[in-house]
Amino acid sequence: MKMLINVPETVVADALRGMAAVYPGLIVDVENRVVVRRDAPVAGKVGLVSGGGSGHEPLHGGFVGPGMLSAACPGEVFTSPVPDQMVRAAAAVDSGAGVLFIVKNYTGDVLNFDMAAELAEDEGVQIGKVLVNDDVAVTDSLFTAGRRGTGATLFVEKIAGAAAEAGAPLERVEAIGRRVNERARSFGVALSAVTTPAKGSPTFDLPPGELELGIGIHGEPGRERRAMMTSHEIADFAVDAVLADLRPAGPVIALVNGMGGTPLLELYGFTAEVHRVLGERGVAVARTLVGNYVTSLDMAGCSVTLCEVDEELLRLWDAPVETAALRWGR
Amino acid sequence: MKMLINVPETVVADALRGMAAVYPGLIVDVENRVVVRRDAPVAGKVGLVSGGGSGHEPLHGGFVGPGMLSAACPGEVFTSPVPDQMVRAAAAVDSGAGVLFIVKNYTGDVLNFDMAAELAEDEGVQIGKVLVNDDVAVTDSLFTAGRRGTGATLFVEKIAGAAAEAGAPLERVEAIGRRVNERARSFGVALSAVTTPAKGSPTFDLPPGELELGIGIHGEPGRERRAMMTSHEIADFAVDAVLADLRPAGPVIALVNGMGGTPLLELYGFTAEVHRVLGERGVAVARTLVGNYVTSLDMAGCSVTLCEVDEELLRLWDAPVETAALRWGR
Repeated sequence: MKMLINVPETVVADALRGMAAVYPGLIVDVENRVVVRRDAPVAGKVGLVSGGGSGHEPLHGGFVGPGMLSAACPGEVFTSPVPDQMVRAAAAVDSGAGVLFIVKNYTGDVLNFDMAAELAEDEGVQIGKVLVNDDVAVTDSLFTAGRRGTGATLFVEKIAGAAAEAGAPLERVEAIGRRVNERARSFGVALSAVTTPAKGSPTFDLPPGELELGIGIHGEPGRERRAMMTSHEIADFAVDAVLADLRPAGPVIALVNGMGGTPLLELYGFTAEVHRVLGERGVAVARTLVGNYVTSLDMAGCSVTLCEVDEELLRLWDAPVETAALRWGR
Repeated sequence: MKMLINVPETVVADALRGMAAVYPGLIVDVENRVVVRRDAPVAGKVGLVSGGGSGHEPLHGGFVGPGMLSAACPGEVFTSPVPDQMVRAAAAVDSGAGVLFIVKNYTGDVLNFDMAAELAEDEGVQIGKVLVNDDVAVTDSLFTAGRRGTGATLFVEKIAGAAAEAGAPLERVEAIGRRVNERARSFGVALSAVTTPAKGSPTFDLPPGELELGIGIHGEPGRERRAMMTSHEIADFAVDAVLADLRPAGPVIALVNGMGGTPLLELYGFTAEVHRVLGERGVAVARTLVGNYVTSLDMAGCSVTLCEVDEELLRLWDAPVETAALRWGR
């Protein structure tokens, strides 16, 4: 498999050098692998730190900036960052108001963020934590005990980030982040396998005429394989899988997410099908975000995340954000 | 090749239905295939209309909105839109101040926009035109007489769009668009072939260990094939190809563009190499945009566009823009 890289060993450092060259609003510590918003620490503001394996860009570095994350810690491809990165990030963004760790539920991430929380607290930084576990496809997998953390991470980072930007204290930012996670569910589908730079060939074998329903963002196995389905059928399956676990009483925000290798033209068509099935199921859609946000390198496929929102969460979603990958001002 | 679609025949209409569902700022006429900003016509403002074959998303529909295009006309995949679309778009956005057609230099697009200009003028709409022909890789190709239009289209749409938004008259908006095109050059590289929905298999054969230098955004042949190169070597080749044609005296804006199938992680690393070689060649970079903007469906690869800017062009680039794919306010 051909890649636009130098050597696999420097892929993450090279990407960080690129981000450093391009985004004046970020301080990118390439050596220590920490991406921090330039104006951190912001006086009186709770800091938000996330991170995880690389290969899911723009998650998390692309979400650092006013209104969202204060810092991100990228690990090697599909590999948890280490506690030292998280401790550095926490120290860089703490204004005295404390720091919220946003952790996707993968065994390595959970262990390392827990260790980092202890170390940071030893240094006097108050730490809160939100564990993101929105993927309804499987419980337990290669990388996880319990449900995996996927698309809901974007919702937690955006909405809790807006609360922090508005001056909410740590306990409140943490409570909002948890509320978002509790109300968000995801389901993903792969049309092709993913190829990591280190391996250089697909990490699993997906036959030409089949797709994998319930795939994880590292290519972990899903629920089942089937003969290839239409966009209409995939939308039915994915949305119904989410709604079997989350029965929203109010409106939702929908994320129609590309896994990285699916053209935007196809993703827009799939979005029409997602809206169709939500309408048929009586679910009102307040906002929709379409694009490649929580990716799996070159994997073709998509995921659907629904997040039930009340007035407060919708207001926080709509609040201004200024990051590399998510940017708006209302 | 598996795709996230229903049937090839409805791919463009399905995508437009998706855009209609998601973007309240757009009026999407799915039947007639015209995407118009909702507040058009804006009193006293010059309208900007572009369009071309689908498969290059977010170009052009993703660039419709305040500060950029007034309307876009999507054709079938890799096929020019028809004059009727362009005439409808011109009528929808003309406030009496006239309309600028922004046309990528492909034979079908040029013919159809010319015919549309005649028809629109017959209906009393004053029409200006900018032909975009920035690709230095080849002169003449499967789709083109002369140089192809690629990444510079984004610069023309953004910068001329900002001039129109600021109230410049048609002749001025047209002159600025032409100035941008004259100062912008591109070069693209393919690591994999592209697969169109209609064909369902790669449109050309690119062997496992080779890349194609100078590829077009429809997979048209480039300058040469070589054994696979590193990101460092590709950046040297692409930037030097551009600089052999454009020797900027002042700073440039750089677009480091993904063709659709290349992960953002790789694109960021490639950006670091582009900045390195520009530094070595003594070219100052005022701004850089990185991402999938002028794509070729699922093709893996990238392109580099450099646009030499003076103070006025840079100010217009920095002006606020609010579209699906490009969004900022300074």
